[in-house]
Amino acid sequence: MMQTKDALSESPPADLLLHGKVVNVCAGDISESYVGIKDGIVTYVGKKPIPAKNLVKLDSEYILPAYIDGHIHIESSLMIPSQFAATVIPKGTCCVVADPHEIANVRGVEGIRFMMKDSSRTPLRVYFMIPSCVPATHLETSGATIGLKEIEELKKAKKILGLGEVMNFQGVINRDKTVMDKIRACKGMVIDGHAPGLRGEELSAYVSAGIGSDHESVSKDEAREKHSLGMWIMIREGSTAKNLTELAGIVSKGSPERVMLVTDDRHAGDLSTEGHMDHCLRRAVEEGIDPIDAVRMATLKPAQYFGLKNLGSIAPGKRADIVIAKDLKEFKAKTVLIAGKIVAKDGEYLGGLKGLLTDAAVKGTVNLEEVQPEDLRMKCPRKGIKGKEKATARVIGIVEDQVITEELRYGIEVRRGEAQPDPEKDLLKILVAERHKGTGRIGRGFVKGFGLEHGAIASTVAHDSHNVIAVGTNDEDLCRAMNRLREIDGGFAIADGNRILDELPLSIAGLMTSLKASHIARKVKELKETSAQLGCNLRNPFMTLSFLTLPVIPKLKITDYGLVDAEELKVVDLFFE
Amino acid sequence: MMQTKDALSESPPADLLLHGKVVNVCAGDISESYVGIKDGIVTYVGKKPIPAKNLVKLDSEYILPAYIDGHIHIESSLMIPSQFAATVIPKGTCCVVADPHEIANVRGVEGIRFMMKDSSRTPLRVYFMIPSCVPATHLETSGATIGLKEIEELKKAKKILGLGEVMNFQGVINRDKTVMDKIRACKGMVIDGHAPGLRGEELSAYVSAGIGSDHESVSKDEAREKHSLGMWIMIREGSTAKNLTELAGIVSKGSPERVMLVTDDRHAGDLSTEGHMDHCLRRAVEEGIDPIDAVRMATLKPAQYFGLKNLGSIAPGKRADIVIAKDLKEFKAKTVLIAGKIVAKDGEYLGGLKGLLTDAAVKGTVNLEEVQPEDLRMKCPRKGIKGKEKATARVIGIVEDQVITEELRYGIEVRRGEAQPDPEKDLLKILVAERHKGTGRIGRGFVKGFGLEHGAIASTVAHDSHNVIAVGTNDEDLCRAMNRLREIDGGFAIADGNRILDELPLSIAGLMTSLKASHIARKVKELKETSAQLGCNLRNPFMTLSFLTLPVIPKLKITDYGLVDAEELKVVDLFFE
Repeated sequence: MMQTKDALSESPPADLLLHGKVVNVCAGDISESYVGIKDGIVTYVGKKPIPAKNLVKLDSEYILPAYIDGHIHIESSLMIPSQFAATVIPKGTCCVVADPHEIANVRGVEGIRFMMKDSSRTPLRVYFMIPSCVPATHLETSGATIGLKEIEELKKAKKILGLGEVMNFQGVINRDKTVMDKIRACKGMVIDGHAPGLRGEELSAYVSAGIGSDHESVSKDEAREKHSLGMWIMIREGSTAKNLTELAGIVSKGSPERVMLVTDDRHAGDLSTEGHMDHCLRRAVEEGIDPIDAVRMATLKPAQYFGLKNLGSIAPGKRADIVIAKDLKEFKAKTVLIAGKIVAKDGEYLGGLKGLLTDAAVKGTVNLEEVQPEDLRMKCPRKGIKGKEKATARVIGIVEDQVITEELRYGIEVRRGEAQPDPEKDLLKILVAERHKGTGRIGRGFVKGFGLEHGAIASTVAHDSHNVIAVGTNDEDLCRAMNRLREIDGGFAIADGNRILDELPLSIAGLMTSLKASHIARKVKELKETSAQLGCNLRNPFMTLSFLTLPVIPKLKITDYGLVDAEELKVVDLFFE
Repeated sequence: MMQTKDALSESPPADLLLHGKVVNVCAGDISESYVGIKDGIVTYVGKKPIPAKNLVKLDSEYILPAYIDGHIHIESSLMIPSQFAATVIPKGTCCVVADPHEIANVRGVEGIRFMMKDSSRTPLRVYFMIPSCVPATHLETSGATIGLKEIEELKKAKKILGLGEVMNFQGVINRDKTVMDKIRACKGMVIDGHAPGLRGEELSAYVSAGIGSDHESVSKDEAREKHSLGMWIMIREGSTAKNLTELAGIVSKGSPERVMLVTDDRHAGDLSTEGHMDHCLRRAVEEGIDPIDAVRMATLKPAQYFGLKNLGSIAPGKRADIVIAKDLKEFKAKTVLIAGKIVAKDGEYLGGLKGLLTDAAVKGTVNLEEVQPEDLRMKCPRKGIKGKEKATARVIGIVEDQVITEELRYGIEVRRGEAQPDPEKDLLKILVAERHKGTGRIGRGFVKGFGLEHGAIASTVAHDSHNVIAVGTNDEDLCRAMNRLREIDGGFAIADGNRILDELPLSIAGLMTSLKASHIARKVKELKETSAQLGCNLRNPFMTLSFLTLPVIPKLKITDYGLVDAEELKVVDLFFE
């Protein structure tokens, strides 16, 4: 038990020895040090060199632990996990905790298994949370259910860390059996929350059920209250929601206690241009957060929260996941090491791709009979004999860049018992066709705000059940666009004059493609331009489309069951009277 | 999924609602708030009152999470766990993580099971680490072995959190199979360290094996280095080692990252007079640590390190383990709640004692044949015919208040082939009799520093194997004292004139008693006074005695195998020549 001299003299040399400004997230300082790596593990950190096969001097550069995103829906990037990984690794990301909520709504456990399998093709460590709310509501038809049986099955997988954001906060507050059973099933694991605006006694009730985190705070007060109740605060800075400016103030200088940075949703284009966690770090520092504290919020802190004991710092015994960067302002990764191997250099992914894409389980998910114009007719109680008559209808009113909508009332023209769209007044048909069970069920309604003057657009990305959603000026183009998605196994499509103008196939569950980020970004831009040529001037028409099916966000939404009053949580008639 | 109004209006009222200055270790602030408790759990924290069966207004008092000691050897208090609990609960402690290293050396798994069982008789949460080094060395005879088989068996117990302080740091550095197998067996659990003075490359090697903490730092530099390598620093302020003054500076203000307060060893008298973690908190604040940060180091931080998810803060879902105190300077607990129930008030333990003491497994541990004066003779190569002759012997030199000793050389008088003690020159006999296996093995030597002028003292508390150790001026009194320990199943005894002057029976494994702290403290004081009457002026003769058997701390020690050179780690001859 005593020290004998030169105990280490015979220990084999390190594989790699780095020297540079080491950002030490444990001690909270930066010091010129050596980092020894052997067999993918950091084995040494210190001021003196040790024997090594390779010595790399990076004296003017920073050596940081690689970044961790604690909450992301990979599907929102439209990329499959392996492609997503190849995109974010060069940005310095070594690990993400994914909630595969979207694919679970389409393909359930099989879909999640695809995500696990495909993500293991690259060196990125992708952990998963079990989606807690599949289906999201009883007002829509999903492709699968994640119940207790599925949770028990998924829990066995090593990459599962716990239960994904428990959106049904009212169910938790009321201690509804269904949701509480799921929480109990995941006891001892991480349980993520999702509680926009929840405060006071209800928030206490939500937290006391065992919910550990929240990423939905939009005000400092809200975040402070959640934080003071013991929740881990995930400050979100993604493509859709950007909360850093508002929430930066909750971070205590010296060591950010129970706070981390996450992206939630991040589009392919933003990932490839702005970046991933490196962008969050940049933004955090812009907002006045101390650089070391910022790094802690994207490394040590998520590792602590998720119990990822061998990640999150450059310290002996931890995995050698390392970013080499020129400064702590841009945080741009010059070199990225994962498990001690160089996996990216100057923005280029070098990590390889193991095995083949095996996507059989998530292909062919658009189970839809060919749609005919007759299927899209909107029968009206008013007959409209001899020319024109009007019926007063509920119309979905778009609020650009927001997920809420308005409920509008318009007089809709009726011809031979059928309500007609009126592009001149921007009153377009909106349809949701069930695509999982082959029921042929189609929800019908009108929408104002897309501005299409002719043609139609359709998509299989429509939260949370991802049925086929389409908006158009006439039944022929609507059919064309929807049927095209049937032919290409899902994606985005634009039709006009009964032909397809443009499309982005998303044949993996109708949600993702194996294309590269830059390709997707270009395509999304083109689709937007094509939509604009048809008269649609929304900044992101397919994203707007994707949220119109969310029956839990006010006010008027649409699912395959028809129009849904999202406040009353019930299907409502299209026409008044 | 939407909020319906008055969701909570029908929820049952809280059992108890406290109002006072809540010390929020999550947010790092203090605010006048209400704390709702139901079924032993905190269900509400907020500014507004909620319906409750009882409302207690504590407006001028602080409401703190109850304290956690992350590293303690309960045996060092000489109290059995239930009695220890009844002593520390009134001091505000709700949880300790115990390393039952001492009893494991005497009774192995059975001994640890006794600790678990007895500790569950009170509301104190006592978690355990598996002692990693039993026996401590091959140079002594222990009562049991904790090997891989025992580790696998113990791991199944719910109260086991991991592997106790891995003292064999050289074995870890050299990746010795025996110690590495134990670490591997506890993978995924907490693995505590013990690495006094270890630095540089050797420290990196130790940490990279998976060691998570250290409580042996005595200098700021040493603690900083360990901290920067990712270790959790346990700042120790116990009865023996007091490191707070030196180490307070490593705590970063704002949130103490990876630092906690522990006691390691704490005597009954100190516990009942100075206190337990309340004393550490008092000392931390005296040393300039922010009071909220100090509280975090005795609540939130140990809970984080040990993964005790439902402890360490006053937040919804956490166990209602609460201290009510008048100030954040003395930290004296006026009232202590555990699981929502009042378990102590004004220093009085009210938590009750469940079940009976079942100590059969840890009784009768002094397996020693009656010792006769002939057994203690020290044969010498020099015959000493016709009167006196001298032989040069190795003599253990006491260094008061330290665990190290010196190796001295003295001429020892030999009569009829036997070396003789010489009380006038303070050259006393020291003996270690094996008491576990009944081998009759007795190690013999001389010691200088006790100062006994007549009589003898003996003890069964002798680290780490806890054989019978005795120091005395003559063989008759040595026999009397040692045989008395045999009669009373272990403890401390003082003999003079062939009768017992004083004793403290420690019949539980020869290490502990079920007496109260105040009783033990009084008795220890009396024993010291009795020793002083015999000429011994050591501040704590039985503690000094207990460390003379530690063969890993320099320089000259003694075990049942005889004198041990603790630097060379081998048994050495008593006489030179």
